[in-house]
Amino acid sequence: MKIRPLHDRVIVKRLEAERKTASGIVIPDSAGEKPDQGEVLAVGNGKILDDGKVRPMAVKVGDKVLFGKYAGQTVKVEGDELLVMREEDIMGVVEA
Amino acid sequence: MKIRPLHDRVIVKRLEAERKTASGIVIPDSAGEKPDQGEVLAVGNGKILDDGKVRPMAVKVGDKVLFGKYAGQTVKVEGDELLVMREEDIMGVVEA
Amino acid sequence: MKIRPLHDRVIVKRLEAERKTASGIVIPDSAGEKPDQGEVLAVGNGKILDDGKVRPMAVKVGDKVLFGKYAGQTVKVEGDELLVMREEDIMGVVEA
Amino acid sequence: MKIRPLHDRVIVKRLEAERKTASGIVIPDSAGEKPDQGEVLAVGNGKILDDGKVRPMAVKVGDKVLFGKYAGQTVKVEGDELLVMREEDIMGVVEA
Amino acid sequence: MKIRPLHDRVIVKRLEAERKTASGIVIPDSAGEKPDQGEVLAVGNGKILDDGKVRPMAVKVGDKVLFGKYAGQTVKVEGDELLVMREEDIMGVVEA
Amino acid sequence: MKIRPLHDRVIVKRLEAERKTASGIVIPDSAGEKPDQGEVLAVGNGKILDDGKVRPMAVKVGDKVLFGKYAGQTVKVEGDELLVMREEDIMGVVEA
Amino acid sequence: MKIRPLHDRVIVKRLEAERKTASGIVIPDSAGEKPDQGEVLAVGNGKILDDGKVRPMAVKVGDKVLFGKYAGQTVKVEGDELLVMREEDIMGVVEA
Repeated sequence: MKIRPLHDRVIVKRLEAERKTASGIVIPDSAGEKPDQGEVLAVGNGKILDDGKVRPMAVKVGDKVLFGKYAGQTVKVEGDELLVMREEDIMGVVEA
Repeated sequence: MKIRPLHDRVIVKRLEAERKTASGIVIPDSAGEKPDQGEVLAVGNGKILDDGKVRPMAVKVGDKVLFGKYAGQTVKVEGDELLVMREEDIMGVVEA
Repeated sequence: MKIRPLHDRVIVKRLEAERKTASGIVIPDSAGEKPDQGEVLAVGNGKILDDGKVRPMAVKVGDKVLFGKYAGQTVKVEGDELLVMREEDIMGVVEA
Repeated sequence: MKIRPLHDRVIVKRLEAERKTASGIVIPDSAGEKPDQGEVLAVGNGKILDDGKVRPMAVKVGDKVLFGKYAGQTVKVEGDELLVMREEDIMGVVEA
Repeated sequence: MKIRPLHDRVIVKRLEAERKTASGIVIPDSAGEKPDQGEVLAVGNGKILDDGKVRPMAVKVGDKVLFGKYAGQTVKVEGDELLVMREEDIMGVVEA
Repeated sequence: MKIRPLHDRVIVKRLEAERKTASGIVIPDSAGEKPDQGEVLAVGNGKILDDGKVRPMAVKVGDKVLFGKYAGQTVKVEGDELLVMREEDIMGVVEA
Repeated sequence: MKIRPLHDRVIVKRLEAERKTASGIVIPDSAGEKPDQGEVLAVGNGKILDDGKVRPMAVKVGDKVLFGKYAGQTVKVEGDELLVMREEDIMGVVEA
């Protein structure tokens, strides 16, 4: 992994293929902000709270996560298109 | 259940049928943001407060809840269309 | 009562008739956001504060309350049209 | 008095007449948001702060107060047209 | 003085004349929000903080202050046109 | 110095000349919000925090500072055109 | 280094060249807000929190950082075009 996200940011690789057939979960293709899936590749140390303490992350590397379609910003790392988003943008963790 | 919601998020399955006849509750069909009913399928661990403590959820799996019509985001899990929303979007619990 | 409101929400039944003749209080019928009256049918447990404590409600079941005309959301329960609003939307309690 | 205002709300009766002649204070009649005068008829118990304590009101029944022309909402009580506003909307107390 | 300002409000009398010739300070007459000068006639007790304590005022009666041209609201008291503004709107104190 | 800035405000004299030739620093002349340089002539006592404590200023009289082109408000003092801005508007201190 | 950034600000020198070929990371060239890379040349002492404590910076001089394309403001120092931004604008640190 080449990028260490700061604070409550997460690096996610979109699972494009699963958006169409899926092992159970299908994301509807209509207009508006739609959820999406991806795998967590890196997480920050957590959000720094107002009193200086750090809130640990609720997701970890390897988690499959659900997030809003337009969440985060896209970067390319060694050919892979990745997303950098905040934990706040993650709606839930997909469990096997 | 396939999705574990983060923090104060809730997964809800809409009770479409009851919106028309209902065991007592009928949601008006006029324009604007209208309440809706559903059953809670999964809940997060609760909202993380600024001091790091977790506020437990006020709804639990199996609750029938009332929420704003446009609350949350839609996902499909094994054929069911589900809603992911925040506890904040839930107006009340329908009691038998 | 069929709905248990969450947190600082209140269920109110509008007192339509009293808006015109009234035992003293008449709500003007002009344009813009106008106050309205109703009876409290159910109240939540109170607002959960940032430190996790609960702020008790300032209104109770049976109170006649004054609120902004467009406050809250409408639901129908066993034929009655009810309002779900936040305590914040209530301007005052009408005393006999 | 028929209405008990909640929290930091205040019930005020406008002093229309004094806006034109006045015992010293004249409110200009130009465009835009203009201050106005009134007498306090009822006050709430005070604003509930985040830690649950109550901030007592800075105005009391009988005070003559100055407020923004469009502050508050109008209600009619036994023929009088009253204003329900927040203490925040009151700019100052007029002293004899 | 006829008005006692609430909390962090200040009553200021504009020093119109000094805006043109001045004992050193001239306010430019171009477009946009421009600073202005005035004398403090009355001050509130200070801003009430979230924990209930009062933050004392940083200006006192008699201070010559600089403020944004459109700060505050105008009232007329016994012929004088006064401004009611918040201490927040005051940029600085002009020293002799 | 004729003006004592309140709280976290700073009085700055623009260094117009240095914007073009400069001892090293040149500010680009393109459109949009551009940084600018100036010398600090006066500083307030610091920002008053919510708990009543005062956060001391991070700049002092004599500092050469960098700020957004449209930061602050302009006043004229004895012929000099000065800026009154908040410490928040200052991006950095230029060191010799 | 000629500029000492205040608080949570960071001075960054864009790595223009690497945006096209790169040692692995390529930033897409499409429309909208795009991430960008740079090297940290100077950092502030950290953000001052509401209780007066200072939150130390999460980046240090020499770090290669990823940030939103339009983050920060541009200044020229001795011929170099630099960016002054907040740590908040930095998405992550690129590791070798």
